[in-house]
Amino acid sequence: MEKISIGNNVFLLPMPMVLVGSRKEGRANFMAVAWVSRVNASPNAMCIAIGNKFTAEGIFENKEFSINIPSVDLIAKTDLMGLVSGREYDKSKEFDIFYGSLKNAPMIRECPVTMECRLIESVRLEVDTIFIGEVRNAWTEEKYLTNGTPDITKVSPFCLSMPDNRYWSIGEQVGKAWHDGLELKEKLEKI
Amino acid sequence: MEKISIGNNVFLLPMPMVLVGSRKEGRANFMAVAWVSRVNASPNAMCIAIGNKFTAEGIFENKEFSINIPSVDLIAKTDLMGLVSGREYDKSKEFDIFYGSLKNAPMIRECPVTMECRLIESVRLEVDTIFIGEVRNAWTEEKYLTNGTPDITKVSPFCLSMPDNRYWSIGEQVGKAWHDGLELKEKLEKI
Repeated sequence: MEKISIGNNVFLLPMPMVLVGSRKEGRANFMAVAWVSRVNASPNAMCIAIGNKFTAEGIFENKEFSINIPSVDLIAKTDLMGLVSGREYDKSKEFDIFYGSLKNAPMIRECPVTMECRLIESVRLEVDTIFIGEVRNAWTEEKYLTNGTPDITKVSPFCLSMPDNRYWSIGEQVGKAWHDGLELKEKLEKI
Repeated sequence: MEKISIGNNVFLLPMPMVLVGSRKEGRANFMAVAWVSRVNASPNAMCIAIGNKFTAEGIFENKEFSINIPSVDLIAKTDLMGLVSGREYDKSKEFDIFYGSLKNAPMIRECPVTMECRLIESVRLEVDTIFIGEVRNAWTEEKYLTNGTPDITKVSPFCLSMPDNRYWSIGEQVGKAWHDGLELKEKLEKI
């Protein structure tokens, strides 16, 4: 297993795809984002990292945004949201939009899971800015739930790999978390 | 499509699984992490979000950490790294460890893709802390590459869904990014 250096411009594999909603110039705007993660347990907080885009301006202005998880049948629309800027195109026409309690966090009805977020902090890096949002409320539909929570097999999200720029569905269940290591744990000795 | 509120404790779907490496009390330590994202284009920066754990103490102390992408054949070992604390167990014994230029960023030889990171910023939230690291160098093996970059089908990473705590493989290619929306783009009218 000879390791080789491949420079520093490597990507996480895979990257979950979401659509980030914001408001700017009086209209709802959406952007395809693959740099996203949960970042705090309680209260639930999520971060997204994006460049100096129309979306970033909207979030700075209103301190609110949404995170929408699209399913594989929304791939073309999701991709479109990464191809054009809300500065030039009215992206609000592309989806059926709804709102929760945050009036500047437009959510996409076609997306199985959506979250409305209140900006709590931003971190400006050289090129991109990390927006950290507290999730105020999440929305779904009955048909996506199993035991009261969104079921990944029903939501059918997709991921991105870069720099080859391919989208991937979720595969098979290959394990159980906080479980599959239990057998190995029994063999460990404490320090 | 009647939307229902499911409170605020919702998770991103899916969450990519990584192992975060650090050094503490003179030994290498590893932790399973699913809250991870790239956050800056250039220089490449990644963030992880973790609680007040042994790993967090190590990163604060040394300002260095690693991100290791495990493949599906490492599920049990990865899960184990989320079950026990480096405070009680010497996790360095579980892997074949190697180092690049950062001497406090131990990397796992069994992982197809690894990155050594220098801490550039941390953001303390209520429960968890976001560690933002500049990726100084990434490592892989020839067999994981296609056209010079890590190929997700060869790396075979896996993801987590919560709160059902299931691990998932990557499925089929379902699209091409910055491409599948081009047809829809042609029909759009500029503002």
